[in-house]
Amino acid sequence: MDTAKITQNITTELEQLKKYTSTPEKGITRFPFTQEAKEAANYLAQLMTEVGLKVRTDNTGSIIGRLEGKSSETIMLGSHYDSVKHGGAYDGIAGVICAIEVARLLRENNNTLSYSLEIIATNDEEGARFNTGLFTGKVLLGQLTVDDIKNQFDAQGISVYDAMKSYGLQPDEIAEHTRNDIKAFLEIHIEQGPVLEYHGAQLGIVQVIVGIKRAKITIRGRADHAGTMPMNMRQDALEQASKVISKISDRARLFPNSVATVGYLEVKPNIMNIVPSEVNFAVEIRGTDEDSIMSQYYALLADLDQMSHASGLTYTAENLLFTSPVKMNETIMNILEASCIERGYSYMQLPSGAGHDAQIFGEQIPAAMLFVPSIGGRSHCPEEKSEPKDLAVATIVAYDAILKIANSL
Amino acid sequence: MDTAKITQNITTELEQLKKYTSTPEKGITRFPFTQEAKEAANYLAQLMTEVGLKVRTDNTGSIIGRLEGKSSETIMLGSHYDSVKHGGAYDGIAGVICAIEVARLLRENNNTLSYSLEIIATNDEEGARFNTGLFTGKVLLGQLTVDDIKNQFDAQGISVYDAMKSYGLQPDEIAEHTRNDIKAFLEIHIEQGPVLEYHGAQLGIVQVIVGIKRAKITIRGRADHAGTMPMNMRQDALEQASKVISKISDRARLFPNSVATVGYLEVKPNIMNIVPSEVNFAVEIRGTDEDSIMSQYYALLADLDQMSHASGLTYTAENLLFTSPVKMNETIMNILEASCIERGYSYMQLPSGAGHDAQIFGEQIPAAMLFVPSIGGRSHCPEEKSEPKDLAVATIVAYDAILKIANSL
Repeated sequence: MDTAKITQNITTELEQLKKYTSTPEKGITRFPFTQEAKEAANYLAQLMTEVGLKVRTDNTGSIIGRLEGKSSETIMLGSHYDSVKHGGAYDGIAGVICAIEVARLLRENNNTLSYSLEIIATNDEEGARFNTGLFTGKVLLGQLTVDDIKNQFDAQGISVYDAMKSYGLQPDEIAEHTRNDIKAFLEIHIEQGPVLEYHGAQLGIVQVIVGIKRAKITIRGRADHAGTMPMNMRQDALEQASKVISKISDRARLFPNSVATVGYLEVKPNIMNIVPSEVNFAVEIRGTDEDSIMSQYYALLADLDQMSHASGLTYTAENLLFTSPVKMNETIMNILEASCIERGYSYMQLPSGAGHDAQIFGEQIPAAMLFVPSIGGRSHCPEEKSEPKDLAVATIVAYDAILKIANSL
Repeated sequence: MDTAKITQNITTELEQLKKYTSTPEKGITRFPFTQEAKEAANYLAQLMTEVGLKVRTDNTGSIIGRLEGKSSETIMLGSHYDSVKHGGAYDGIAGVICAIEVARLLRENNNTLSYSLEIIATNDEEGARFNTGLFTGKVLLGQLTVDDIKNQFDAQGISVYDAMKSYGLQPDEIAEHTRNDIKAFLEIHIEQGPVLEYHGAQLGIVQVIVGIKRAKITIRGRADHAGTMPMNMRQDALEQASKVISKISDRARLFPNSVATVGYLEVKPNIMNIVPSEVNFAVEIRGTDEDSIMSQYYALLADLDQMSHASGLTYTAENLLFTSPVKMNETIMNILEASCIERGYSYMQLPSGAGHDAQIFGEQIPAAMLFVPSIGGRSHCPEEKSEPKDLAVATIVAYDAILKIANSL
């Protein structure tokens, strides 16, 4: 296996892809159905063609390169090519480039596949433009309707439906693009966290993609003059919010493989000498176990109830998102592990704290993920970086797995 | 004493003054050195002339009506005629109208004054335009320089200096307007809080104007992906801020006549699924005792130190304001109390939680304040209201006091 050449190809191709951004002055911004997305798609199609794949663009705007096997049933390998705003040059797209390298290796080694292989660059996984995400995966597994995409809008008020039309796709036919021929889905992705680097592992094998509970909490008190309203007559929304929020992180620390974050908080009227009348905040709880996620959420609601009872302030809690944890396929995990051992790569199993296309596939069919270390754990920022030699390791392990999966499923 | 007529005059005149606002659709907004300020000033000058005062505008934009007494030394009675943004129709201006009524009663009763009396409508007490305040008081007591007012700007970048020039004043001569002839300052003002209403008192005699400590606290952590960064590797600025803030109010409750407020808080980057990298908040501690204010502030700094030590996050604390508590003059307080008792008005002594012109005067000369109940404790909002009959009570007590002060100081 010519690791140096794989590393060189990955380096060159990721360098070229950095050009397809709407914010060249600050990282990668490649939203779906835009000019920069089309340029990236064209480049990926060219790379796929060069390695001998039969290339098409599907109705979600994903680019697919197919290698026919003995069976028309398909194993899919890939990741996404869209990005967040001011993101990095590795999130998603690195997995696509690795997948194309896997196809090159298969072609150059004249491997015969039992199943057909599709290298896929999925579209709108991040959801940064329409506040949605996992678009290609949801369409391929029949989870989106025409009504849905008519009611998802970007900041300019353009719907997914209209954006697809402008891009030359057929949004009315979205339901007809459900795929029943996919036997397995494999994704290479950067970790986006510090765990592999911390443990000095070359590769991560994902055990489970966390479930996510997001809720918007509003605490309503009363605005008063911060000098003239005595402490015992106040209804200070920020005082009460701070008491409730101060418990959220420590509670998350009691549960293994769980995180909880208040990333967004807004105070009204937010003036130095006025007692806050209202605080809005978003709480996000992630974990590998659904019960532990909901235990934390119910404990938060209990704290809010108690606060309301004791202080007279009121609150509302609005669900924004709930997804269950999705386990990766153990058979494929074992295949990936065997390859690491055989080739002498250091690896570890870990949960994925971020969502990925593999979770949509993994709900219905065997799916697995390989994580590549993120330097400093940084992601969703221009500083995001993974080493091309680590991406080459993931490529080789995926290559091994594609050959073995065909005989194991 | 024709209380009905006093009440009627106050009602009519405050009604007329509601017209001088830049936001007729939402409360009173009467910033200094504006067209609406000039219209209000002209109306006040007309009222003062009608009751027989000799009227002038001083170099701060305040309107002064003078009644000569046996001595040229002056007792000053008044309040401010500027307002906050979207404020009410009573804060400040009600005290000016009451003061003019006092002058009318003195003239109509042919009272002879030992000292001369000046009825004053001060300017820019609120500081809403230039983020300053107590302007006339500071100038009259020699606390502002030309340099100061060249470096205080409004939201459009106009300095106090330039605003004064455009208004027809002489900012270069500001230092020459220090007054050495003022023997006492008396101010009638709405309470802006709920205490008088809660106790059913018609009138409040202010004991002390609270001192204020304001600081801007910045806690700096690190932005991370809210899914992929484990809890024990985070530097969550909002987690730490919430723990520090949650103690501030309860600590203030331990000190009598003290309040503490976090009214302003800003989270960066303030995105639901990103661990907060920075939290800025403003803490304001007010109290009648300087030691109790500083004890609370040092306890907050100790909490921040401990937080920084334990979590590795850093913080800075920047002083925004410190003013000492200012005691009102006991001789005048006794005179006011005696008048309440003689006339059968219910009253109570209380601290002022808000700042007032009387605190600037009170630092150097005998000063006192009368508070009139605020309905529901509301202030700095369009709903702000006090009963004209209560304002009439304050007027009569001030009338009594002006006559007595002349013989007591």
